[in-house]
Amino acid sequence: MSGTIYGLGLGPGDPDLMSVKAHRLLTGARHVAFFRKKGRPGQARTLADPLMPQDAIEVPMEYPVTTEIPLSDPRYNEILSAFYAESVAQLVEIAERGEDVVVLCEGDPFFYGSFMHLYTRLKDRVPVEVIPAITGMSAAWTATGLPITWGDDVLTVVMGTLPEAELVRQMLNADALVVMKIGRNFAKIVSALAQAGKLERAWLVEYAAMPGQTVQRLSDVAADQAAPYFSIVIVHGQGRRP
Amino acid sequence: MSGTIYGLGLGPGDPDLMSVKAHRLLTGARHVAFFRKKGRPGQARTLADPLMPQDAIEVPMEYPVTTEIPLSDPRYNEILSAFYAESVAQLVEIAERGEDVVVLCEGDPFFYGSFMHLYTRLKDRVPVEVIPAITGMSAAWTATGLPITWGDDVLTVVMGTLPEAELVRQMLNADALVVMKIGRNFAKIVSALAQAGKLERAWLVEYAAMPGQTVQRLSDVAADQAAPYFSIVIVHGQGRRP
Ligand SMILES: C[S@@+](CC[C@H](N)C(=O)[O-])C[C@H]1O[C@@H](n2cnc3c(N)ncnc32)[C@H](O)[C@@H]1O
Ligand SMILES: C[S@@+](CC[C@H](N)C(=O)[O-])C[C@H]1O[C@@H](n2cnc3c(N)ncnc32)[C@H](O)[C@@H]1O
Repeated sequence: MSGTIYGLGLGPGDPDLMSVKAHRLLTGARHVAFFRKKGRPGQARTLADPLMPQDAIEVPMEYPVTTEIPLSDPRYNEILSAFYAESVAQLVEIAERGEDVVVLCEGDPFFYGSFMHLYTRLKDRVPVEVIPAITGMSAAWTATGLPITWGDDVLTVVMGTLPEAELVRQMLNADALVVMKIGRNFAKIVSALAQAGKLERAWLVEYAAMPGQTVQRLSDVAADQAAPYFSIVIVHGQGRRP
Repeated sequence: MSGTIYGLGLGPGDPDLMSVKAHRLLTGARHVAFFRKKGRPGQARTLADPLMPQDAIEVPMEYPVTTEIPLSDPRYNEILSAFYAESVAQLVEIAERGEDVVVLCEGDPFFYGSFMHLYTRLKDRVPVEVIPAITGMSAAWTATGLPITWGDDVLTVVMGTLPEAELVRQMLNADALVVMKIGRNFAKIVSALAQAGKLERAWLVEYAAMPGQTVQRLSDVAADQAAPYFSIVIVHGQGRRP
């Protein structure tokens, strides 16, 4: 008699790129949950805005403020763990009343998504269903107008949060490359690409499949200090092509 | 006055996982093109079957038989090039009459897709639009019920067609791993995973988001000789998680 919790992949942004299934679940949803930072509307909630049913009950899950605590401090994990446990309790309570909840996720939920932290805590307690989606990177390489991988190309996906030396090592090893989580890591990523000899072939895509989408050669903007949250660096593969 | 050629990403299989846009374009299409092997219905055409408009004009593009010619023989590329040029001529002819053509693509067109070979030859001649889609790998990791990447995990995507030593090298270097194009490379992939110490954590997903989907631990089926065309090996990342 329990309701189902849906980890609903919204895709990259454009509602026309949502799956038929996600579109149907969202427009018919009664409870809509999403993460947000204090005082912000929430990235996923903003993406879903054009499709939010008028009478939906919103369930914001507000991240605790952790800006003063370094990632390496054990308290960081403790605070986040407590936050996820609390969010899970809120969702389970709704499901146990027999009602479904849609949890909004940017892109594909299982691909570097924050829903995963709820999922692992929910899956043995209530029915959970994950709806895959088009990733931000698919929208980004489509926006460049060039295929990302050919033939036997190896595709490597790295987070800009990695240390510079590790970025260089992975970049050297990749045929096709995607870098996510750019933001304040911008200068480090540019430097790593230059060391790996890939800066000249790199593209920066901001807001892929969203209003305000831009596609630029990274070398044209390499002097910038930062890029928005929704930005991705793409280096296309050069594999075999008849 | 030219029509548009759409590289239409069908997603992994389930029509409910197609994008709203792809669904609309396919169900309203007048000309539907697709690759196929001689005597076969075509993988993408089969995926699209439940949504094919009754009165659509089908444009099969039939691969030349190349089984006796090794990939390394220059004639292989020549024959394929001629085939792509001929397919392109066929599509351009329809577009120049002012009519749109939908070209069916498995998964996301720019991600190891065969449409790319048409795209590069079409894009300076007629309007072409690529519709991104959910990849087969997204459907595969969703099917395993475990997130593919956490925190700073590096995701590496490799083709099973690579030489064994190169597979091992890339597997050692990956946190999360996706292997595509399994088929007759099955035994080589199993051997490479064992050498990289990742066989015990590997999953085999056949027909992700299609009828007959299976999810198995690879070590339980490692004695098999082959896997179907639609199969993917997944090794999940183990990154930081509060
Ligand atoms: C926490 S990850 C979530 C990834 C998401 N689950 C997906 O499938 O794309 C957030 C990062 O994804 C990237 N991203 C996601 N969607 C994007 C878009 N539409 N345009 C540009 N970048 C995007 C950015 O690099 C951002 O820092
Ligand atoms: C030529 S590639 C095309 C990839 C496709 N463009 C995509 O985005 O997934 C073909 C390979 O994709 C993988 N594949 C694609 N869809 C799949 C699915 N639904 N289930 C299992 N494997 C799939 C298989 O490994 C297959 O050998």
